[in-house]
Amino acid sequence: MKDYTFEEFKHDLQNNNIKKPDAILAIARGGLTFAHHLAEKMNMREVFSINAISYDKDKKLDSINIFNIPDLKDYENILVVDDISDSGDTFIEVLKVLKETYPNKNFQTIAIFYKPTSKFKPDIYFHETNEWINFFWEVY
Amino acid sequence: MKDYTFEEFKHDLQNNNIKKPDAILAIARGGLTFAHHLAEKMNMREVFSINAISYDKDKKLDSINIFNIPDLKDYENILVVDDISDSGDTFIEVLKVLKETYPNKNFQTIAIFYKPTSKFKPDIYFHETNEWINFFWEVY
Repeated sequence: MKDYTFEEFKHDLQNNNIKKPDAILAIARGGLTFAHHLAEKMNMREVFSINAISYDKDKKLDSINIFNIPDLKDYENILVVDDISDSGDTFIEVLKVLKETYPNKNFQTIAIFYKPTSKFKPDIYFHETNEWINFFWEVY
Repeated sequence: MKDYTFEEFKHDLQNNNIKKPDAILAIARGGLTFAHHLAEKMNMREVFSINAISYDKDKKLDSINIFNIPDLKDYENILVVDDISDSGDTFIEVLKVLKETYPNKNFQTIAIFYKPTSKFKPDIYFHETNEWINFFWEVY
């Protein structure tokens, strides 16, 4: 178990230069704070969100509901943002829906943490970890 | 000019109890981090965003473009979240669009800061100020 503090987050943001996309897309909830800070850092107002909510289905299979797909027609390069690629299911399902909806767009993915056991490896990540992460926005 | 630090934000969140709505709606960009933390605090996954971008029109009048209205049909009480009610124009325009789209919903507004010169007073705010605020997400 590891605490990921605001100070570490700020340090990570200040020490990683990410190529400016045309739009930033936060996966809610987990990606919202990260996407907001990325948008501030890159001085971008084109920051949107998409919802991904997992539901326990029969307690056997997880089903992820993807909704509130924003209007991306004016943007070519879209940075899809989440806090962590844990199982990888969220990124996989979100990208599936995005590519179905916008087959000609270029989607890049970013997460703060990547677990090597994840089925999905983000294009950019700050840390690889096997630990459970307590993000600073989860402390209330 | 006042710095609003993450520590103050955390303190404000821990010392204000807000009635749990059915959905949280962040006004992007400014409201994203606040909405994320509120959703974590209230253990809610129903957190969405709406975009409000001001454009200089003829250098005389500001025009605010409101877009990416999320699907709110399943929710009755919606908490609309921004960082500050400064001129008040953003809240006024967002609420106008929301009430046109969803005339029968109950919208409550919350901001961290409220300026007494604002044309709009949020239902809930943590601080009243006349100062320029530097939010911790603006430091990069």
